[in-house]
This record gives sequence, structure tokens and C-alpha cells, in this order.
Amino acid sequence: MGSGGLALLLALALATCVSPAGRKCELSGLWRNNQESLMEISAVRDDGGFQGKYLTRVSLAGGCIRVSPLKGAQHDLGEVAWPTFGFTVRWERFSNATAVFVGQCFVDAGGKETLATTWLLREAVGSLEEDWKATRVGRNVFTRKRSHRGKTLQSWSPSCEDGLAPAL
Amino acid sequence: MGSGGLALLLALALATCVSPAGRKCELSGLWRNNQESLMEISAVRDDGGFQGKYLTRVSLAGGCIRVSPLKGAQHDLGEVAWPTFGFTVRWERFSNATAVFVGQCFVDAGGKETLATTWLLREAVGSLEEDWKATRVGRNVFTRKRSHRGKTLQSWSPSCEDGLAPAL
Amino acid sequence: MGSGGLALLLALALATCVSPAGRKCELSGLWRNNQESLMEISAVRDDGGFQGKYLTRVSLAGGCIRVSPLKGAQHDLGEVAWPTFGFTVRWERFSNATAVFVGQCFVDAGGKETLATTWLLREAVGSLEEDWKATRVGRNVFTRKRSHRGKTLQSWSPSCEDGLAPAL
Amino acid sequence: MGSGGLALLLALALATCVSPAGRKCELSGLWRNNQESLMEISAVRDDGGFQGKYLTRVSLAGGCIRVSPLKGAQHDLGEVAWPTFGFTVRWERFSNATAVFVGQCFVDAGGKETLATTWLLREAVGSLEEDWKATRVGRNVFTRKRSHRGKTLQSWSPSCEDGLAPAL
Repeated sequence: MGSGGLALLLALALATCVSPAGRKCELSGLWRNNQESLMEISAVRDDGGFQGKYLTRVSLAGGCIRVSPLKGAQHDLGEVAWPTFGFTVRWERFSNATAVFVGQCFVDAGGKETLATTWLLREAVGSLEEDWKATRVGRNVFTRKRSHRGKTLQSWSPSCEDGLAPAL
Repeated sequence: MGSGGLALLLALALATCVSPAGRKCELSGLWRNNQESLMEISAVRDDGGFQGKYLTRVSLAGGCIRVSPLKGAQHDLGEVAWPTFGFTVRWERFSNATAVFVGQCFVDAGGKETLATTWLLREAVGSLEEDWKATRVGRNVFTRKRSHRGKTLQSWSPSCEDGLAPAL
Repeated sequence: MGSGGLALLLALALATCVSPAGRKCELSGLWRNNQESLMEISAVRDDGGFQGKYLTRVSLAGGCIRVSPLKGAQHDLGEVAWPTFGFTVRWERFSNATAVFVGQCFVDAGGKETLATTWLLREAVGSLEEDWKATRVGRNVFTRKRSHRGKTLQSWSPSCEDGLAPAL
Repeated sequence: MGSGGLALLLALALATCVSPAGRKCELSGLWRNNQESLMEISAVRDDGGFQGKYLTRVSLAGGCIRVSPLKGAQHDLGEVAWPTFGFTVRWERFSNATAVFVGQCFVDAGGKETLATTWLLREAVGSLEEDWKATRVGRNVFTRKRSHRGKTLQSWSPSCEDGLAPAL
């Protein structure tokens, strides 16, 4: 093997094993939280941007829940094993609220991946005077959900008519 | 005035006066908060997505601050005068942190626009055991900054060498 | 003046001027926030404990608002000019919610006192599954309200029959 | 059995089974969270007030951790099975920070008690300009810790000299 091959191997080793504490964490894939909500994240682009879908199982007012689009960004590509990230979920049609999540991806010694996140859920209010009560805070911990034969989040999505329920 | 002109007038009236409580709020443009941080938001796309730049004036550890990219989404295009929105800021190079903002745009009777936002700032920590201390919370109120002759955020940006300061 | 008098003067000087940045901040007294809510805090005891009353002007569901008792603790007596503090407000009778505030007292060069606080407002929910939506977050900035001739918070209190409105 | 005995039985039944969803939750006793921090809460007084001690296992900067006093209030005595509550922890000597917790007590069908809480941790900063970065947010879930032969929190307390570490 020439020196070029060796350099390539070293580069690969660095890319896949950059943390003394464990394996590099990959955001892309299917995730489930302790409320049984599901989240699917696309491949992360070179500029850190990613897209995805969020299917909540909980809602502020009940009613029909839909898969909602999410958009976000991951910090530090390649350099850090466990990067921080953030994303926005736009609850389509069934709520006037917007949620943002911020978190970090961890991998334990056994290879188990965890997304530890904190979120803010903002409802629309009618005036600046009501702004004080518009924001809820919470915490969500996601673990990777193994997907059978390429089953994706859309498969779990309920079918329903347009509703009006605000939701997380 | 022909019927075309009348239709135009009606369209303008709808675009500028869709809320009983006031004028429709536009996210795009240049904004300043009470900490003198600046934020520039692009035109909002049809799917609610937008991009922009954030120039913070405050930092967790001092040092060189850079203009950082932001990406987000606005709720309800066209239907609601004062939509909720959320975005992620990826602090480039000078910090390992990520911030998310969620808020709502308001316009008062005098036409003054306000973005009332709450944010979470997440630092990278070394393990899941340290996760408890990683997240700060705060509030930012932005008002529109009038820009002279197309001056943009980049014009206010400091020039500096690569630094290491974590920052909001 | 004997040495006892001198020691007393020195002690007084230390007590009133312990910070290079300004005057020592006293929690006790009458405070008003930007929502026109009022708060009255008793003298702080030697162990840091204090009591008081809170009269909110805003509520989650409207209805009759009552003066509610607060209890808390201030950090570091005597040593620090601008101590951190925290307190709990128990909304009596008109809400099932509890609020906690945490903050710090500041005095600017002109002697203006500010309590910068962040709060959590927790509503009762029917089960652990609904816990995710129970907590709101916000920020309150209080400034000292000059009281005329010993007028106290009770004087501003509305008189009303028992209501059921949850409130901040 | 006389009518007095029957009344007593009914009273006991009411006291232990006031919620359709489960048993009444009692705040007093010894609790442990998922970070192995311990908390001991006294009997709740008639006005809802309680006191206690908090022994954290985690700290912002390492160093010696001490048992710290807590003071708080529980909502709705007697009427509600699962009341909301809040309390303030004053980190004695080893930190300039103050923490507040707000939460609700739940009992599941099997009788397992859970305190679901959200907290704010406030550090002292040197000026109002630095106030933005002073507040962390997080979540703690406590379960009751069975105590053997009256062993109390003080028994687990470390012995150490005065330190300076800020801590949760």
C-alpha cells in the first residue's frame, strides 16, 4: 500500500473515531422519544443544514395530528464527534404554533445513540400584552428507532381530515 | 381608474391590512435587539422557509464574534397577520454552541413592528451526565432597524482572525 | 468619637457600599414589572428567607385575581452587593398553578434598582402523560415602585368573589 | 363496629383515595432523581409551606458539595390529589447561584410516586449587561427513596472543607 492509501486509511479512522468517549453520532435516520413521537432526519448537508419530518403523539387540544416538516442545522461537521444541533418544526395546518428544539447527540460505550434535546413551543397570541403566556418549555430524549425494510415515518402517519388542534 | 387598478388597490389593501388588530408583519429585513445584536432575514419562501444572518454583540467568553447563518420557518403564510416563527443559529467557528429562537411578530397601532422571541442556547458538553447544565434560556425583543441606502448586516460585521469564544 | 463609633461607621460603610459597581441592592419593598404586576417583599431574615405578596395583572383565563403569598430565599447575606434570589408564588384559590421566579438584583450608577427575573409557571395536569405541556417560561423585569405614605400592595388589591381563573 | 368506627374508615378512605386517577401524593419524605441527587422534604404545613434539604450530585465547576436548604409551597391542601408545588434552593457557601423548581406530584396505578419538575438555575453575574447568560433550564424527575431505619439525607452528606464551586 502506498503512502496515499495509508493517508486515506488514517483520514477514515479520524472521521469515524474522532471522540475518545465513543463513536461519532449521526443525526440522520429515524428517532423516537419517550412520548412515542417519531422524527425522521435527512442526510446532513456540507453546510450543516438538514430537513426532516416530525410526527407528534401529543397535542395541546387533541384532534387530528399530521406529519410536520422540520428544518435545522448541525454544528461542526467532521471536527466534533457529538455536535450540538437545532431545528424548527412548523406544525402544518392543525396548529398555529411553532416549536424549536436544541440538543446534542451522544453515543454511549455500547453504541447506543441518544439525542438530548430541550424545546420551546410557541403559540400565537392576539397581542403583545398576551406574549407572556405564549411559550412552553420542555425536554425530549430521543433514541434511534430501527426501521424494518426501509419503513419510513410516513408509514406511521395517520390519515385524517383537516383539523384545528394546536399541538406539540 | 380601470378595473385593473381597482383590483390592484384591493390587493394592496388586503396585503397591508389583513388583521383587525393591525398591519401584517413581515419577517424579512434588518432587526436589532435590546443588546444591540443585529439580525437580517431574507424573503420568506412559499413554504415558510427563510434564511438570514445573525450578528451577536454578546458572548459567553469574549473574543472575536462573527456573522453567523440562521435558518428557520414561519407559520401560516397569508392567513394570519402575526405568525409564529422559529429559527436556528449555527455559531460558525467561534463557538461549539447552537441557538434556537421561537417567537411571534407583532405590529402596534402606530405601525411599529416587534419580534418577541424566547431562545435556548445549547453548549456542547463532554457526556450525557453533563447534559443537565448545557442549556440556557432567555428572551430577546427585536425592533426593525431602518437601513440607509441598502446597508446590510455585513456592513456592521467586525473583521477579525479566527477565535475560540463561545457566544450567544 | 470613640473607637466603638468608628467601628460602627466602618460597618455601616461596608454594609451600604460593598460593590465596586454600585450600591447594595435591597430586596425588601414594593416592586412593579413591565406588565404592571406588583410585588411586595418583606425584610430579608438572617438566614436569607423572605416573604411577600404578589398581585398579578395578567391571567391565563381572565377572571378575578387575588393577592397571592410568596416565599423565597436570597443568597449571600452581607458578602455580595447584588445577590441572586428565588421565590415561589402560590396562586390562592383562583388557580391550580404555582410559579417560581429566580433572579438577581442590580443597581446602576444612578442608583436605579432592577430585579431581573426568569419564571416558570406550572399548571396542574391530569396525568404524567400530560406533563409535557404543563410548564411555561418567561421573563420579568421589576423596578422599585415608590410608595406614598406607606401605601402597600394591599391597597391596590381588587375586591372580588371567589373565581376559578388560572393565572400568572 | 359503631358509627364512630365507620366514620373513621370513611375518613381514611377519603384521605388515601381522593383522586379518581390514584392515591393522594405526599411531598414529605426522601426523594432521589435520575442524577442521584437527594432531596428531603418536611411535613407540609397548613398554609402549604414546607422546608427541606437538597444534596446535589452534580456541580457546574466540581469541588465540595454541601447539603443546602430549600423552602417552598404546595398548592391546594386537601382538595387536589396531585398538587403543583414550587421551591427555592439556596446553595450555601459553595456557590453564588440560586435554583428554583416547580412541579407536580403524580401517583400511578401501582402506587409509584413521581415528582415531575422543571428548574431554573441562576448564577450571579457582574452587571445587567451580562444578565442574558445567567439562567439555565432543565428538568428533574424524582421518585421516592425508601429510607432504612429512619436514615436521613444528612447521613449521605459528604464532609468537606469550604469550597468555591458553583453547583446545581
